[in-house]
Amino acid sequence: MCLVNVILLLVNLNQIQPVKVEKVPLHLQHIAYFLVNKMYSFVSFRIINKTTRFYHTKSSLLRPVQFISNNKMLTNTAISQNEEKEIFMNTLPIITETILKNPKFTELPGVGSWMKKVLEYNVGSGKKSRGLATVYSYKMIEKPDNITEESLRLACIMGWCVEMLHSYLLVLDDIMDHAITRRGVPCWYRLPEVGLGAINDSVLMHMSMFYILKTYFSQKSCYANILDTFHNSLLNTSIGQHLDYTMAHHVENNYNYFTMEQYMAIVQHKTAYYTFSLPVCLGLYLANKMDIEMHKKAKEITIEIGNFFQIQDDFIDCFGDESVTGKIGTDIQEGKCTWLAVMALQRCNASQRSEFEQCYGSKDPDNVQRIKRLYETLELPCLYKEYEQKLYESLEQRVKSEHSGELISSTIGLRLFETIYKRKG
Amino acid sequence: MCLVNVILLLVNLNQIQPVKVEKVPLHLQHIAYFLVNKMYSFVSFRIINKTTRFYHTKSSLLRPVQFISNNKMLTNTAISQNEEKEIFMNTLPIITETILKNPKFTELPGVGSWMKKVLEYNVGSGKKSRGLATVYSYKMIEKPDNITEESLRLACIMGWCVEMLHSYLLVLDDIMDHAITRRGVPCWYRLPEVGLGAINDSVLMHMSMFYILKTYFSQKSCYANILDTFHNSLLNTSIGQHLDYTMAHHVENNYNYFTMEQYMAIVQHKTAYYTFSLPVCLGLYLANKMDIEMHKKAKEITIEIGNFFQIQDDFIDCFGDESVTGKIGTDIQEGKCTWLAVMALQRCNASQRSEFEQCYGSKDPDNVQRIKRLYETLELPCLYKEYEQKLYESLEQRVKSEHSGELISSTIGLRLFETIYKRKG
Repeated sequence: MCLVNVILLLVNLNQIQPVKVEKVPLHLQHIAYFLVNKMYSFVSFRIINKTTRFYHTKSSLLRPVQFISNNKMLTNTAISQNEEKEIFMNTLPIITETILKNPKFTELPGVGSWMKKVLEYNVGSGKKSRGLATVYSYKMIEKPDNITEESLRLACIMGWCVEMLHSYLLVLDDIMDHAITRRGVPCWYRLPEVGLGAINDSVLMHMSMFYILKTYFSQKSCYANILDTFHNSLLNTSIGQHLDYTMAHHVENNYNYFTMEQYMAIVQHKTAYYTFSLPVCLGLYLANKMDIEMHKKAKEITIEIGNFFQIQDDFIDCFGDESVTGKIGTDIQEGKCTWLAVMALQRCNASQRSEFEQCYGSKDPDNVQRIKRLYETLELPCLYKEYEQKLYESLEQRVKSEHSGELISSTIGLRLFETIYKRKG
Repeated sequence: MCLVNVILLLVNLNQIQPVKVEKVPLHLQHIAYFLVNKMYSFVSFRIINKTTRFYHTKSSLLRPVQFISNNKMLTNTAISQNEEKEIFMNTLPIITETILKNPKFTELPGVGSWMKKVLEYNVGSGKKSRGLATVYSYKMIEKPDNITEESLRLACIMGWCVEMLHSYLLVLDDIMDHAITRRGVPCWYRLPEVGLGAINDSVLMHMSMFYILKTYFSQKSCYANILDTFHNSLLNTSIGQHLDYTMAHHVENNYNYFTMEQYMAIVQHKTAYYTFSLPVCLGLYLANKMDIEMHKKAKEITIEIGNFFQIQDDFIDCFGDESVTGKIGTDIQEGKCTWLAVMALQRCNASQRSEFEQCYGSKDPDNVQRIKRLYETLELPCLYKEYEQKLYESLEQRVKSEHSGELISSTIGLRLFETIYKRKG
């Protein structure tokens, strides 16, 4: 749900004239008001919570939480973020059952039981952020009256399709990267009974994902658009993967290739599209929003957020608190092309570059520390904060736009951004 | 083009009443007549040639070639099989150009030039039988008046999509099988600049195939059906691949798994679907034939032909004339689960089984010869001929059916079968 929907809803209900949008706070108050009064409880709870948290940090003048807490609907209907994930996880058996009920698997029970194992090992675990983002996007976009138990079930199913695409990519990525573990367990291809057959297992997952889409969404008028969106996202990801693979394998220790242009191309294609644009575009389709301009704007904004997400990941890998992130960064040791490395190379003098070239990609803790000190000397943590602040302001600016396609997308963008803004891990 | 189309064409033209179908020869004469008089020359030439060759071997009473040679149109318009392939090959630059004009590649020229290399190495070579079968199916199915230069260009483009799917599968297959060469050159993944990045290159090809489909076919009302058909074919192939991989890697020298059921499941899923069913179903869609029953029948028949095609492959690998096939069979040496191996295990006595177990999967030429002699002792060449004959008769029987869905599919089936019937290599 977003501002434009609220306005449209009001117009549809003939209750008020379209609200003229001038200031962000006013919008957010309107959104908050309608989220509580008109919309599916859960979204309101999340968005209000985000808004509250957000505005507590941004401006003490705005206290939507007080404004909202007077409304009893919230307490009656609100559900927590954990419950949100629980609801989503509860849809997984529908996915598994639908796939395994495919006559292709029932007729070949050995393949069915294998498929079950593939899904359990590769799709069941992980944070599910892409799947949840799909559901979240749908809830933000859809008119409240259209949100039903069935429509949410379908949004969860769509979310699982995104998760299956993600799992497909991870299985292949791990083979290409010779990775050892994934999510704390051995990579799928490393299991003795799997091996390079993992490549085929990933295809099984990918095509079963399309079987799910066909089963649940082939009656929708935008079914072909949904398929195109999946294909297009994967094309983008494979372009990003190619750039990343080439960088990692063919230009070892040649830091001339560590340019911001190359870095942004990798990040945008490899991650931003399928992590941010795909869930939001699918949310739009689930809500029957087919407008090309709206989709274009949604893509633009989500890619911007996706780019930032990766930069944030790079920053946290180096400067994050291990007690919060739960993992030890390895980007410096592995000589990865990160935002920090690219920025450092842009800003260093000859002797600093020489130090960088000497220490980067080394496992020696002293060398790692020298790189971290170099980043600090070059004021990269400060530049990072500035970048984060600027992106927030740019998104906020877009929300002020009166173009409906821009508005709907930028409002989702802002909400999505809030979910990652100032994260520590 | 097939009998039902001929009948429909006649009805449409109000020239005659629907022809009552009773005997195959009459059908074929009608088809031949209309192929020459109404249809795109090339198909007529091919089908008549096949029919002729076929009937010369089947029955000397039927001589469609004489019947047709009185018609001067044939000589004026006929083109050879080589020319057919040439026309198809001439469409390849359209594919490459369309893919490379995608803004994703023009904006990242390095990726564009890589993509060009991937396509040239992997899609350009090979027999193109699947692509040609797509064009051929379309031509057989489509009403002659609808066959234009543009519709044929689109059929060729669709054929190239099938070829791209095939290339995608081959690149992945070679990695999984640790293969060394493919079509006389090193496998793509074996090139020093490629390596396991080949996995991603296959994804690039696969998704570029969908970009082609979107570019040229998204306006068709059956666009979503076309996408579903591609997804479904690949799901079948990956099921077959899984069965094959499991057989090859986990049950080494355990011939209890060499059952006809397992063999047929592998063959049907791994090869028959995407080699035979996919081109014919796409041909039906290209001709706007959406009838579910017709597609179901087409699948049934093409799978039967596809199964036979693989059995034929197995037979030729062992008993084929090297001077004709141009290659030396290795199935026995590699211990593959072939039709011959399965049949031998079904028919052998205890001592023959012991000999089989001792010699199968061995590179020793004496052992290979012993297996071949065992196959002959068990009369497998004779059983093979019987199987071939029975399949022909079953297809012929189906052509006699008066059900239009059955007829259209079985006639295509019979024609396709004729292209492989009694082949030597």
